[in-house]
Amino acid sequence: MSSRIFRVRLSELSRAAGLSPTTVKWYLRIGLLHRGQPTAVNQARYDDSHLRRLRLIRALIEVGGLSTDEVGDLIAAIDDPHRSIQNILAHAHRASAASAGTKAAASAAPIDDYIRHRGWRVRADSPARRDLAAVLDAIAALRPQPASGAAGVSAEVTTPDTTTPDAVYSLLDPYADAVEPLAAAEIANTPADLPRDLLVERVVAGTILLERAIAALRRLAQEHHATKRYGDPKAPADTP
Amino acid sequence: MSSRIFRVRLSELSRAAGLSPTTVKWYLRIGLLHRGQPTAVNQARYDDSHLRRLRLIRALIEVGGLSTDEVGDLIAAIDDPHRSIQNILAHAHRASAASAGTKAAASAAPIDDYIRHRGWRVRADSPARRDLAAVLDAIAALRPQPASGAAGVSAEVTTPDTTTPDAVYSLLDPYADAVEPLAAAEIANTPADLPRDLLVERVVAGTILLERAIAALRRLAQEHHATKRYGDPKAPADTP
Repeated sequence: MSSRIFRVRLSELSRAAGLSPTTVKWYLRIGLLHRGQPTAVNQARYDDSHLRRLRLIRALIEVGGLSTDEVGDLIAAIDDPHRSIQNILAHAHRASAASAGTKAAASAAPIDDYIRHRGWRVRADSPARRDLAAVLDAIAALRPQPASGAAGVSAEVTTPDTTTPDAVYSLLDPYADAVEPLAAAEIANTPADLPRDLLVERVVAGTILLERAIAALRRLAQEHHATKRYGDPKAPADTP
Repeated sequence: MSSRIFRVRLSELSRAAGLSPTTVKWYLRIGLLHRGQPTAVNQARYDDSHLRRLRLIRALIEVGGLSTDEVGDLIAAIDDPHRSIQNILAHAHRASAASAGTKAAASAAPIDDYIRHRGWRVRADSPARRDLAAVLDAIAALRPQPASGAAGVSAEVTTPDTTTPDAVYSLLDPYADAVEPLAAAEIANTPADLPRDLLVERVVAGTILLERAIAALRRLAQEHHATKRYGDPKAPADTP
């Protein structure tokens, strides 16, 4: 982050980044943004590196949905020159893990089994592993309980089954089959010789921002297919 | 939600749902959970419908990452008997939209164009539309600016291009191609004659929980392919 293309005051930097000066000052105070070059008492000049960093912070918070604490952890990893790309990737995954704040899911075994079934090599402490376990637990909890009599009859048409390995495979495989080639291409297309700061943006854009894009595209497609099946959503609410 | 399979006290209900009695009392107070059948002063009995509702709330908060306010909005839609399935789906999308709290993205035009390119019929106020616009804006902001000289040279190997319709299509199409058949199957597989409360669980499980599953699966696949490309992440951090 050493290219000094321009040198501006904080007010101009804020405007270029689309943030209020108060927000930028706060990011400076909590250390998310590195200090500018002092020019006088309470005055400093900022450059390209500050603008790029602010855009990264803004993308992580506004689109990635991360908290400033999570962005802080990720930025610390980014700024540590001894981190490998896998390490930065792991930090990006950890920062954006849905279950980051929740307790460990009970059912690690079905996930271990599923990961073996896919032939994937992933760390035991991968946050995505915990996320997936939490999802399977939640789906299992939503299923009518076997003991609840009449409700059990309609089990097969309600929430997906996650009680046997085969049921987990047939639930998750279509999704894994769809995303694995994308993930493989993302890793394969990361240039090996990219400067570190550009690599980091690539990892962030690839992992966190495109994750939001995938979610948005799936919802748009769901809405489109729901409209095709059930008719125009602007029609009266109870039209089947 | 009328099947009365069991009638229990609040302490037993809490235990069955895996939540503290304090949390369950709070959900009662803010109206997320409907009241039980009063049996004495400060005493009530709860049934299946309360347990199912608590499991849904827990899944939405712990796995879906929704706030209690967002869950409240979604529950209100669920409890309104005049809502269509598309309306419940739209509420689930709105509750879990990444950009729900952010201001409208500037660049609606590229998204309108992209949605036409896919042939999708989606409402103008669809939150997924805004999410996708926010992602494209964030990716565009991370790209080196044309004016910044030397940094512009490496633009093509860093952040994806989102400046022309063709660039947007070739960035998003692989993701849309991957998720559209899944979304189509999810809508097609929703039974038409499902009782309303089971339908809602199906929509929640299908939309919000499986969205987290897709994200987790993509990250696991990314980690696997990064390990294949760069070696064991447990090796010293700088091993290429």
